[in-house]
Amino acid sequence: MRADAQDPVIYLDHAATSWPKPPSVIDAVVKAMEHDAANPGRGSHQMAVRASRILFDTRKTIAKLFHISNPNDIAFAMNTTMALNTAIKGFVKPGDHVIATGVEHNSVRRPLELLKKTLGIAVTYLEADEQGGVAARQVEQAIVPHTRLVIVNHSSNLTGAILPVAEIGEITRKRGIKLLVDAAQTAGAVEIDVEAMGVDMLAFPGHKGLLGPQGTGGLYIHPSVDLEPLLHGGTGSQSESPEQPTVRPDRYEAGTQNTPGLAGLKAGVQYVQQETAARIYQKEWHLAQLMMEGLIAVNGVRMLGPHAGKPRTGIVSFILEGADPSETAFILDQHYKIAVRSGFHCTPLAHQAAGTMETGAVRASVGCFTTEQEVEAFIQAIKEIKQHYN
Amino acid sequence: MRADAQDPVIYLDHAATSWPKPPSVIDAVVKAMEHDAANPGRGSHQMAVRASRILFDTRKTIAKLFHISNPNDIAFAMNTTMALNTAIKGFVKPGDHVIATGVEHNSVRRPLELLKKTLGIAVTYLEADEQGGVAARQVEQAIVPHTRLVIVNHSSNLTGAILPVAEIGEITRKRGIKLLVDAAQTAGAVEIDVEAMGVDMLAFPGHKGLLGPQGTGGLYIHPSVDLEPLLHGGTGSQSESPEQPTVRPDRYEAGTQNTPGLAGLKAGVQYVQQETAARIYQKEWHLAQLMMEGLIAVNGVRMLGPHAGKPRTGIVSFILEGADPSETAFILDQHYKIAVRSGFHCTPLAHQAAGTMETGAVRASVGCFTTEQEVEAFIQAIKEIKQHYN
Repeated sequence: MRADAQDPVIYLDHAATSWPKPPSVIDAVVKAMEHDAANPGRGSHQMAVRASRILFDTRKTIAKLFHISNPNDIAFAMNTTMALNTAIKGFVKPGDHVIATGVEHNSVRRPLELLKKTLGIAVTYLEADEQGGVAARQVEQAIVPHTRLVIVNHSSNLTGAILPVAEIGEITRKRGIKLLVDAAQTAGAVEIDVEAMGVDMLAFPGHKGLLGPQGTGGLYIHPSVDLEPLLHGGTGSQSESPEQPTVRPDRYEAGTQNTPGLAGLKAGVQYVQQETAARIYQKEWHLAQLMMEGLIAVNGVRMLGPHAGKPRTGIVSFILEGADPSETAFILDQHYKIAVRSGFHCTPLAHQAAGTMETGAVRASVGCFTTEQEVEAFIQAIKEIKQHYN
Repeated sequence: MRADAQDPVIYLDHAATSWPKPPSVIDAVVKAMEHDAANPGRGSHQMAVRASRILFDTRKTIAKLFHISNPNDIAFAMNTTMALNTAIKGFVKPGDHVIATGVEHNSVRRPLELLKKTLGIAVTYLEADEQGGVAARQVEQAIVPHTRLVIVNHSSNLTGAILPVAEIGEITRKRGIKLLVDAAQTAGAVEIDVEAMGVDMLAFPGHKGLLGPQGTGGLYIHPSVDLEPLLHGGTGSQSESPEQPTVRPDRYEAGTQNTPGLAGLKAGVQYVQQETAARIYQKEWHLAQLMMEGLIAVNGVRMLGPHAGKPRTGIVSFILEGADPSETAFILDQHYKIAVRSGFHCTPLAHQAAGTMETGAVRASVGCFTTEQEVEAFIQAIKEIKQHYN
């Protein structure tokens, strides 16, 4: 996968961004930059038409993966944070009650905390259990008459716990409440069917499980949902109007799009489609189990998240007793060339639930190119580090 | 420049996006994707540190070009529209009066029109003269006691007229009013010195005159200006706080940045620095003069924008009497493989001033790789098309 002697690294930071990318992704970016990246939707000459075609094809490919019937209901964004900001700030109105969970990322929590102050909205954060889970019945119990939106992190970026989106979707659909899902950790790595799961808005990154370049992502918006756009500006359509056009995807895509990045994203999604998200999930789950077994066998390791054997994404977070997580990560990097993440993972409430507000945690996360050998080397390294502290 | 047999095109749509890119830009994107594109600022392992370094280096390179003393006062954005939305929506408060010009792009006009409705702000659009110009004294005359912001399009994307930013900056500085400049058409193609010109905020694209990839751009924010961020979310810093951190650039850069795109942007800016914006301006101005002379000699061509010999960016817009601009552009594309843009260029007020609200216009725009031969071939094509209509 184009990793070479320059990168003698065991990369276990897939929850932050996937690496390496399939060669087809890089090739697509280069081809777009060299031959096609005129300004899509802004001209009718052949190169501009090819650029528009790239955006359309990428949209269609993503729509197929998530079972979205109309590709134009997908708006591209620069990252999941932008997609979530578009959804939350564009939907919530003064006086609304919003239900979110205690495992939301700061990209959900911070917009909500802002709107509490600026719009006077009320927010209920559902408490996670000790394995990082949240039950659908907690959503049901939290609903009040002015609840308009439920936000669910499909999988916690700290614990890997998978939340019951389909069950929650059944509840919200019945009650006429909209459901926004943060698929930062699941897009491409867990099967997602927006129709079957009752998802009204799905925010997803391009550069994690979908294997595309950084700078890409998007928001699916069900036709029944109208958002005030986050960006107002030129769309190449209804140019004379002082207002953002209503036609999709233009309404939510002001300004020049990241054509080369989106060309790469299409290639990444095609790779996922070939493997299938179901098989990628199985593979990553298996590697996570292997990692957990190895870590549990090490004396003085405290594991976070779902117990062995339970569903989870490829995230394994833990604390090595008596060792600072940052120091552990530093030794892994410097001595073993193993890349993990330590500290607080932009998700303070999840740390609170896990009892790691003071310490943070080491997070090792596998991807679809991770091998068993890499996981074994990682476990061996942890064993040696632990011995060093004994 | 990597254009080959697949692209036998004369590209005169640089005002939309520059093409081709210097090979160093594409190489930098590929190198970042292959070796460095971990998640910047989100981990301390070596690849994440390299990714952070890319962002820092790009920031520093841009700061130098625009004479910005602290690189951390630059916030990256996915495009100029996002930068302008960040500036306008983050700065303007209920009851404010804003002065803008009649040659603003929809990425300024639409946010302002929104804020008129949502915040009850007042906006004065300064009328452009028949050459697309706006005088500094018009700004002075429009100031009222609650004027807090002046927004100026450095160069109109319809006419190429260059507005007197430095003169306006003198006025706003004296009056304690902030000045936001839209450098979509000038960044990299006209010399910009934010300090000398009195610019408080500068919104710029990465993919036009700076020769970087699409999906990049940014906003310079003077230290005296604090904006409510457009995006709230994870920054990898002050993770436990429910609010966006105040430290720059984190405050304005929530979510994963476009590391490969920004690596490419650095290479693009370096190319500009080597050539110098002053020499690029001279070259493009000369080509625009050549184009204008050729067009004026064709019977029945109506030129927009500054007269021959006057300052302008590399944009030449015109109407071929008796011919629909879209049809002219279509023939140029299909028959001559010359790429221009036709129609309404997301700038309705400028069309109003130019008297082209009904027809739109053909826009041919040169870039730093355009040759005299290409301009001559374009003029020859226009002559032939005009004859066809006679």
